[in-house]
Amino acid sequence: MNDNDQNFYMQLAVEQAEIAGLNDDVPVGAIIVHNNQVIAKAYNRRQIDHNAIAHAEILAIQEACQKLNRWILDDCQLFVTLEPCVMCFGAIVQARIQDVYFGAYDPKTGACGSLSDLRNLKSSSINHHTCFHGGILLEVCSEQIKTFFKKKRLEKSRDNGMEIS
Amino acid sequence: MNDNDQNFYMQLAVEQAEIAGLNDDVPVGAIIVHNNQVIAKAYNRRQIDHNAIAHAEILAIQEACQKLNRWILDDCQLFVTLEPCVMCFGAIVQARIQDVYFGAYDPKTGACGSLSDLRNLKSSSINHHTCFHGGILLEVCSEQIKTFFKKKRLEKSRDNGMEIS
Repeated sequence: MNDNDQNFYMQLAVEQAEIAGLNDDVPVGAIIVHNNQVIAKAYNRRQIDHNAIAHAEILAIQEACQKLNRWILDDCQLFVTLEPCVMCFGAIVQARIQDVYFGAYDPKTGACGSLSDLRNLKSSSINHHTCFHGGILLEVCSEQIKTFFKKKRLEKSRDNGMEIS
Repeated sequence: MNDNDQNFYMQLAVEQAEIAGLNDDVPVGAIIVHNNQVIAKAYNRRQIDHNAIAHAEILAIQEACQKLNRWILDDCQLFVTLEPCVMCFGAIVQARIQDVYFGAYDPKTGACGSLSDLRNLKSSSINHHTCFHGGILLEVCSEQIKTFFKKKRLEKSRDNGMEIS
């Protein structure tokens, strides 16, 4: 996939992430592409749904499985604004996603080289290799996350200030 | 939790796994306990739902979150008949499950010491430690999985025989 297409799809994921941020969820968005068509769009819904599983990648994979009526997505590309965590990494492997394009790196929970690197974990029962490509629209994706946490910290310090006064 | 209680809850997970096997899904079942009460029961539904995410642990965690109306399950115990894979391990950590009791070990995909060992993976953003206890009702759980795959191999060899004849 060429750079223009990668950026185009990542921009759609960024728009999904924006919705999560408005819901007070960490702004992460995901898109799944099949035959050059977007078949799933999702955003992190952990807080709003009170659901530990509801990361953007998980919801997008579920939607894509439903659309294609199969659990193997080995002809699909997943775009996500933040490096996948262990759970989402595992879900990507379970679904045999062909290529994963992620935006910002996540030193706190990223499982594709940042906190840990599970990319070379061999499984004798899964004969599939997903390719991971990091840093797509890096600045846009990083800025989106940073802005969210900066806002949260400001709100927290304001709340603390109100408690003291 | 004492051995009798562990075995009791694992037996319920085994019964869930049985349903998965009848659906032609790998027989894995899971139970979540909160304040000595079963609040979620689930079985692997990957094939029947055409959903790569639908492992027993994931479905049980989703159900427990829904019941308790929160995504943090740090006062819950999860029982599962098979050692969790990378995805389910990640989901358990995301949900901050207190204790995980698993039955059979899984050398093919187990992430709690068999294929890989993610138990000591440190995350700077998750300040929680889940305890993993393996080998609960070990023989029952191992036998259940082995019987399923033996049956599948038999069916396959019968089908191949029919094609040849």
